[in-house]
Amino acid sequence: MISVEQVASLHKAMAEDDTLVLEQLVIDIQPADLAEFVRNQLPELGLKILTYLPLEARADVFGYLGVASQCALAEEMTEKGLSQLFVHMNSDERADLFNGLSEIKRQSILRRLAKEEREDIRRLASYEEGTTGSVMSSDYVTLMAGTDVAQALEVVRHTAPNAETIYQIFILNEKKQLVGVLSLRQLILAKPEALIDKEMTKELVSIHANETREEAARLISRYDLLALPVVDDNQCLVGIVTYDDAMDVAEAEATEDMHRGASIGPSNEGFGQASIRSLYTRRVNWLVLLVFANILSGAGIAFYEEMIEAYVVLVFFLPLLVASGGNAGSQASTLMIRGLATGDIAIKNWGRLFIRELIVASFLGLTMAVAIIGIGFWRGGIEIAQVVAYSMLAIVLVGSLIGLTLPFLLLKVGWDPATASGPLVTSIADIIGVLIYFAIATSILAF
Amino acid sequence: MISVEQVASLHKAMAEDDTLVLEQLVIDIQPADLAEFVRNQLPELGLKILTYLPLEARADVFGYLGVASQCALAEEMTEKGLSQLFVHMNSDERADLFNGLSEIKRQSILRRLAKEEREDIRRLASYEEGTTGSVMSSDYVTLMAGTDVAQALEVVRHTAPNAETIYQIFILNEKKQLVGVLSLRQLILAKPEALIDKEMTKELVSIHANETREEAARLISRYDLLALPVVDDNQCLVGIVTYDDAMDVAEAEATEDMHRGASIGPSNEGFGQASIRSLYTRRVNWLVLLVFANILSGAGIAFYEEMIEAYVVLVFFLPLLVASGGNAGSQASTLMIRGLATGDIAIKNWGRLFIRELIVASFLGLTMAVAIIGIGFWRGGIEIAQVVAYSMLAIVLVGSLIGLTLPFLLLKVGWDPATASGPLVTSIADIIGVLIYFAIATSILAF
Repeated sequence: MISVEQVASLHKAMAEDDTLVLEQLVIDIQPADLAEFVRNQLPELGLKILTYLPLEARADVFGYLGVASQCALAEEMTEKGLSQLFVHMNSDERADLFNGLSEIKRQSILRRLAKEEREDIRRLASYEEGTTGSVMSSDYVTLMAGTDVAQALEVVRHTAPNAETIYQIFILNEKKQLVGVLSLRQLILAKPEALIDKEMTKELVSIHANETREEAARLISRYDLLALPVVDDNQCLVGIVTYDDAMDVAEAEATEDMHRGASIGPSNEGFGQASIRSLYTRRVNWLVLLVFANILSGAGIAFYEEMIEAYVVLVFFLPLLVASGGNAGSQASTLMIRGLATGDIAIKNWGRLFIRELIVASFLGLTMAVAIIGIGFWRGGIEIAQVVAYSMLAIVLVGSLIGLTLPFLLLKVGWDPATASGPLVTSIADIIGVLIYFAIATSILAF
Repeated sequence: MISVEQVASLHKAMAEDDTLVLEQLVIDIQPADLAEFVRNQLPELGLKILTYLPLEARADVFGYLGVASQCALAEEMTEKGLSQLFVHMNSDERADLFNGLSEIKRQSILRRLAKEEREDIRRLASYEEGTTGSVMSSDYVTLMAGTDVAQALEVVRHTAPNAETIYQIFILNEKKQLVGVLSLRQLILAKPEALIDKEMTKELVSIHANETREEAARLISRYDLLALPVVDDNQCLVGIVTYDDAMDVAEAEATEDMHRGASIGPSNEGFGQASIRSLYTRRVNWLVLLVFANILSGAGIAFYEEMIEAYVVLVFFLPLLVASGGNAGSQASTLMIRGLATGDIAIKNWGRLFIRELIVASFLGLTMAVAIIGIGFWRGGIEIAQVVAYSMLAIVLVGSLIGLTLPFLLLKVGWDPATASGPLVTSIADIIGVLIYFAIATSILAF
C-alpha cells in the first residue's frame, strides 16, 4: 500500500508543480499503488501524474486502473498520447480498453498504429465478453519445432522485452499448430546443441478461445500453470492466458457468485466506487420480485385465516418454522453452488449427493424438532407441541432438498446456479413452509 | 481432465497387473488428474499406482492430493518409501503433511532425513496454521549482493532442479537481509559483467511470516507477483509464497466466506468427499442458534397477540415485510463483506458508505412500499395500506443499515465479517422487523 507520507509528498509536489520531485516520487511507488492513487483523482490530475512517468512505466500503471478509469482518462488524452500508450500496453488490456472507447476515438487510434498492431487489436477485441479469447494476450514467445536450445535461448532473449511471459515458450509445427510447451527452466538446464523437440512437454493443457474465461481460470488453478495456451478450431495457437489474469477472473467470479447469492445484479465497478444509481438498479429488481414471491406466503396464510383466528398461538411459531426451512435450504444450496464452482462436485454425482443430503437433513430436522418441542408444549399444550415438532422436521427436510436441487435445475436450463443461493431458495422454502405448517396443523388439530 | 479411455486402460492394466503398460500410462497423465484418480481409490490401490512413477513425478502427484488423502496413504507406506517421498516433495507441502502425521511416523521420518532437511521441516511446520509462514516454501534461489550477472546465471542453473521457482531471485546482504529482487527475465537481458545490484528492483513487496496467509494472497494478486518474499522481524528472508499457493488460498477463503455466509462451519475437506457426520456438525450449531434467535420474533408476535386477534389481516403481510428487511439487509452485508475481503473498501470509509447506503435504502424502501400499497388497500382498506407501506419503508431502511454495520462491528471485535452475511443478518432483521411492524400498526390503528 502507498504510505501516508508518499501521498502527502505527492500532493505537496503537485501543488508546487515540482517536476523533478514528482518524477522521483512516482517511479518509487509500486505501479498498482500509483494506479489506485490516480484512480482517486480527477481525470485531468490523474493524467498529469501519469505524464511524469517514462512511457513503459506509464503503460504499466495504466494497465492496473480498470477499464472504467482507463476510458475516463483516455477521453482527456491527445490522440498522440493515447496511441503511444496503446503501443506499450499489454495486448489483452489494450483490447479491453479499445472495446470501451467511443467509435471516434477507436478510429483515430487505429489510424495512428502500425498495421500489425491494428490487426492484433481488432482480432483480440472481436472475442465475445466472457470468453477466454476476450481475456487472452498475444504477447508470448513461440519457437518452431526443430530449433536447437542455443538458437531458442537467442529467440527468448530477443523477445523478452515485449512478451508478457517468457517463462513458458510455445512450440509450433509448420502449420502453426501447438505441439509442445517448454519452460525457461527446462531450456536453461538443457544442453545447447539439443533439439527443443526432445526437451519440450508434449502432454499439454490448452483451451479453445470460445470457452468461458472461468474455465480458463479453473485450468490454470488446477494444473498450477503460469500461462495457458489458447487455440482455435485447427489447434493453432491464438493467444495465452497468464496466471495473474486467472486470479482476477477467479476473484471476479467469486464476487459475482456471492452477490448473486444475495440477489444483487452483476457490475464491473468496485463496491467502494459504485454510484447510488447503480447500486439501486442492481438491488431493486430482485427485491421487488421477492416481494411478490412472499405475497404467495401471505396468500397461504390468508387461506388458513379461520384456523389462525381459532389458534392464534400458531402465529407465534410461524417466523421460526419458516426461517428454519430457509436457513437449512440456504446451507444446502450454498454448499452445492460452491462445490460446482470449484469443480469439487459434478452434475453426474447428483443422485449420491441427494441421498446424503436426505440423511443429513433428517438428522438436522430431528435435532431442531427436539430443540423446539418444549416451547411448543409450554405455549400451547401437547397438540401444538406435536404440530410444531412434525412441521419443523418436514420443513427442514423439504427446505434442504430444495436447496440441493435448485442449483442443479438452474444449471440444466443454462442459468448461473449461484442465483439459487440466498433469497430465492429462502422465498421458495418460505412458501412451502407455510403450507406444510398449516397442513400439519389442520390434520392434527382436526380443524 | 482424465479421459474415460485413460480410466478404462488404467483399470484394465491394474487388473492384469501389467507393469509396463501402467508405467507408460501414468507418466502420460497430468499430475493433477492422476492425483484425482488416486484419491478416489482405496489407499492400498492408490499407493500401488504411485509406485509406477519415478520418484520425482511421484512426489509431484502426491503434492496434488490434499493433506487428508496424503496422510491416509502415508500410513500405508514403508518408512523408507515415505522418507524418500519427503526428500522430493516441495518444502511447503511436506511441512503440511508432517503436521498431519502421527507422532510415531514423524519421529521415524525425521530419523531418516539429513540434518538440513530435518531442520527445514521442523522450521516450516512450526508456524501457526493460517499464517503466511504455514504456507511458505523454502525452495528458492538467493544471491549475495555484489555478484555479477554471469556468476548469477551459473547459480540459477545450478539451483534450478531444486527450487520451486527460479523466475524470481532474491538478493541478500551480508546479514541475510532481503535487499532486492531480480527476475530471470532481467537477468537474461542484462550484460554478463554487470553487477546484480544495478539490475535488481529495490522497491519490493514483502510480508512478515506471522501475517495471515490471506494477506499474502492479496499482495500477490494486487501486485501480480510470481513469488512473494517472506521475512522475519529482522527483515531476513525466511521463505517465499508462490502464485499457485496464493490461488489456492484465495479459493479456500472465498469458499469459507460463502459457507460462513450460509451459517456453515469451516472444513478442510471438499463438499463432494464430506461425510454425513461432518456435514451435520458443521450445519447444526448455527441452525439451532438461529432457532432461538427466531423465538424472539415469536415472542414479539406473542406480545401483540390481542391486536392480531382483532386484525388477523396483519398476519397476511408478516412474512412479506419480515423477509424484505432480511433480503435488503443481506444485500448490504454481502456487498460490504466482499468489498472488505477483496480490499475494495476499507474500515475507514465507513461513514461515507453509511450515508450512501442510507440514500440507496431509502429509494429501495420507497419502491417496495409503492409495490405493496395496493395489495394492502385491497386486503384491509386505507389504514392497513398505510401500516404496510410505512412498515416496508422503515423495515428495509433499518435492515439495510444493520447489514452494512454488522460486518464492521464483527471486524472490530476480531471476528470474521463473513459471519454477518445471510442468516445472522436475516434473523436480526426479522426480530426488528416484527417489532417495527406491530409498533407502526399500534400507532396507526390506535389499538
